[in-house]
Amino acid sequence: MPTVSPRADPESNPRVKAVYDDIRATRNSDFINNIWHYLAFDEDLLERTWEEVKAVMATPSDLDPLTKELIYLAVSIINNCEYCIHSHSAAARARGMTTSQHAEVLKIVSLAAKTNHLSNAMQVPVDPEFMVSKS
Amino acid sequence: MPTVSPRADPESNPRVKAVYDDIRATRNSDFINNIWHYLAFDEDLLERTWEEVKAVMATPSDLDPLTKELIYLAVSIINNCEYCIHSHSAAARARGMTTSQHAEVLKIVSLAAKTNHLSNAMQVPVDPEFMVSKS
Amino acid sequence: MPTVSPRADPESNPRVKAVYDDIRATRNSDFINNIWHYLAFDEDLLERTWEEVKAVMATPSDLDPLTKELIYLAVSIINNCEYCIHSHSAAARARGMTTSQHAEVLKIVSLAAKTNHLSNAMQVPVDPEFMVSKS
Amino acid sequence: MPTVSPRADPESNPRVKAVYDDIRATRNSDFINNIWHYLAFDEDLLERTWEEVKAVMATPSDLDPLTKELIYLAVSIINNCEYCIHSHSAAARARGMTTSQHAEVLKIVSLAAKTNHLSNAMQVPVDPEFMVSKS
Amino acid sequence: MPTVSPRADPESNPRVKAVYDDIRATRNSDFINNIWHYLAFDEDLLERTWEEVKAVMATPSDLDPLTKELIYLAVSIINNCEYCIHSHSAAARARGMTTSQHAEVLKIVSLAAKTNHLSNAMQVPVDPEFMVSKS
Amino acid sequence: MPTVSPRADPESNPRVKAVYDDIRATRNSDFINNIWHYLAFDEDLLERTWEEVKAVMATPSDLDPLTKELIYLAVSIINNCEYCIHSHSAAARARGMTTSQHAEVLKIVSLAAKTNHLSNAMQVPVDPEFMVSKS
Repeated sequence: MPTVSPRADPESNPRVKAVYDDIRATRNSDFINNIWHYLAFDEDLLERTWEEVKAVMATPSDLDPLTKELIYLAVSIINNCEYCIHSHSAAARARGMTTSQHAEVLKIVSLAAKTNHLSNAMQVPVDPEFMVSKS
Repeated sequence: MPTVSPRADPESNPRVKAVYDDIRATRNSDFINNIWHYLAFDEDLLERTWEEVKAVMATPSDLDPLTKELIYLAVSIINNCEYCIHSHSAAARARGMTTSQHAEVLKIVSLAAKTNHLSNAMQVPVDPEFMVSKS
Repeated sequence: MPTVSPRADPESNPRVKAVYDDIRATRNSDFINNIWHYLAFDEDLLERTWEEVKAVMATPSDLDPLTKELIYLAVSIINNCEYCIHSHSAAARARGMTTSQHAEVLKIVSLAAKTNHLSNAMQVPVDPEFMVSKS
Repeated sequence: MPTVSPRADPESNPRVKAVYDDIRATRNSDFINNIWHYLAFDEDLLERTWEEVKAVMATPSDLDPLTKELIYLAVSIINNCEYCIHSHSAAARARGMTTSQHAEVLKIVSLAAKTNHLSNAMQVPVDPEFMVSKS
Repeated sequence: MPTVSPRADPESNPRVKAVYDDIRATRNSDFINNIWHYLAFDEDLLERTWEEVKAVMATPSDLDPLTKELIYLAVSIINNCEYCIHSHSAAARARGMTTSQHAEVLKIVSLAAKTNHLSNAMQVPVDPEFMVSKS
Repeated sequence: MPTVSPRADPESNPRVKAVYDDIRATRNSDFINNIWHYLAFDEDLLERTWEEVKAVMATPSDLDPLTKELIYLAVSIINNCEYCIHSHSAAARARGMTTSQHAEVLKIVSLAAKTNHLSNAMQVPVDPEFMVSKS
């Protein structure tokens, strides 16, 4: 049960249609998934969010597309976003994530959560060796 | 200020020494970072944690070592573990993370946190298209 | 599927009835929403929680009622409490939150989450200029 | 101890200087607080973050500036961002937050955290009365 | 809707069957709850998780079984794991948790969340009196 | 560096003094730890927080005092409250927590965090067997 109302006819709004068109062109697919239909309740929120997702996730960069999706998935698991866990598990599979790699992500995420809490519980002092060198 | 006391002479304990020896051999380095000194307050906790870190992070697998560190770092940022943010930023740099890749990880982590909370705030329904196919 | 059982006939318990009566009187409404029915499994928990909600949220103070609801909603989003996201989105609408203001809350919450994680990821030192002056 | 290196002479970089100039002009102040110095390690991250902070927080809108800061502060407290708790407590004071209002924010945030976890612990079903009406 | 596929005939896999047999023997029950069916998508993840759960939770130790379940439940509430809140509420009841003790756990968890956020919001300095003595 | 100012002479305020006197009497100790000095910036916040801590933690109940402290500590670790991790580790030691029990708490907390995230990542369906029976 959502907390905002999706538009009855979203593409009758030219700002919404422009974003949807760009999503379809960027992804080379007709599928617009639900988060965009709900973000469309506010055109500004829709435009800004898509612009950032496109720039960070859909633009060639120094990290490959699968690695980027795995990082996104890891964050979504820790933040416990049900929608995002589903959408980014699916996106990672679409970019080639194997069942074995999926298992590995789960092992890393759950191990990291474990040692994060152990470190916090013991308040372990940071080693000076970890200091970043001056630029 | 830690909440547990590191051992005065940790390697006089044979179980602790065995773990430290394995850390040094696995990493090909003499450096034992602080979390292991603090985990050593309980030999069982030290042995189990190292065994899992070694299996998940230090064993060749279907994800490359840098990708694994970036996922670990992303989780540590969201869980706000100061020690782990430092240790895994350093570990990622040691595995070749460039400044540009570091910036990318920060962009993905912060964008994911943003859309995670947007999805949760709107309680967006999961698209049936995301369903995993039966094995 | 809840983890505690609501009472079959809650108002037959005089302590529960007294709280329900006060909720109805304070809100000038006959509607008792579900959290009170579930908290009623323990009278003490019911009484204490209502007393605090009434004091903090339903008593005139130096913040207006809508602002208080927006803060409550923001916290509920970050803590990912599905029930609370729904109840406080509805409560904010009842206190006059417009669709545009709802969008603004989502923009602030998601931007804050973004910069919170960027600051933590970089471990930015606190500026001395932020220090509170002595009382 | 930060995990990224601030630039030695940030304003020698024209993209960094342009952002700093806009921060000073927007805030009518010469003070550039630390997060901008650290974000400057990547010009793109600096530009995008400032552009969003400016649009969401420094542009007149349907919520007053103090309310926006209080929401930002509430999120920062829940996410436990030390830097952000300090910077947004200071920003709220600069926008007129009184000591009494500060105490109120703390009461609302901590009460919300309390009822968020009570609702989650009991897995309270959402009342159908909370449903948003169709637009 | 899960994100991984449970095996069609899990016990035809000898590694999965060995874990299931050990779960049944350890718990003296035929019931295998869902998390094990889903973890079984990766034998290694299944084996390691069960081995740790067995060692920490099902082995006699210096904390009694009910106390251990209550701690597990408290963590699951704060992490907002719906499955775990249900499974560990049920496990605690099976180990004798009364309704009154359940209410107490909720009171402690929600009070702790409240004071955790108050302390973080005020950035209270740690008292030197809390320092652990050297071992 | 705190975000609120402790009072210069807190016990000159009769409401603050009354709370401090009750803390000393309840704990049979002259030591007032820092959180009370900072909460004292708002008398109402001080009184309400102490009243709840006293009722939940310092009143004989169906859980023994050490168990209550261990649950409080577990929550504080997950919420990453530095102050609270220290104060409740110390309080648990004062109530008899041994080093071995401390290690056990850390093992349970970190294992729970691990399985919480595994369950969320896989979106495991809740077993109907976990349903609470009707009261």
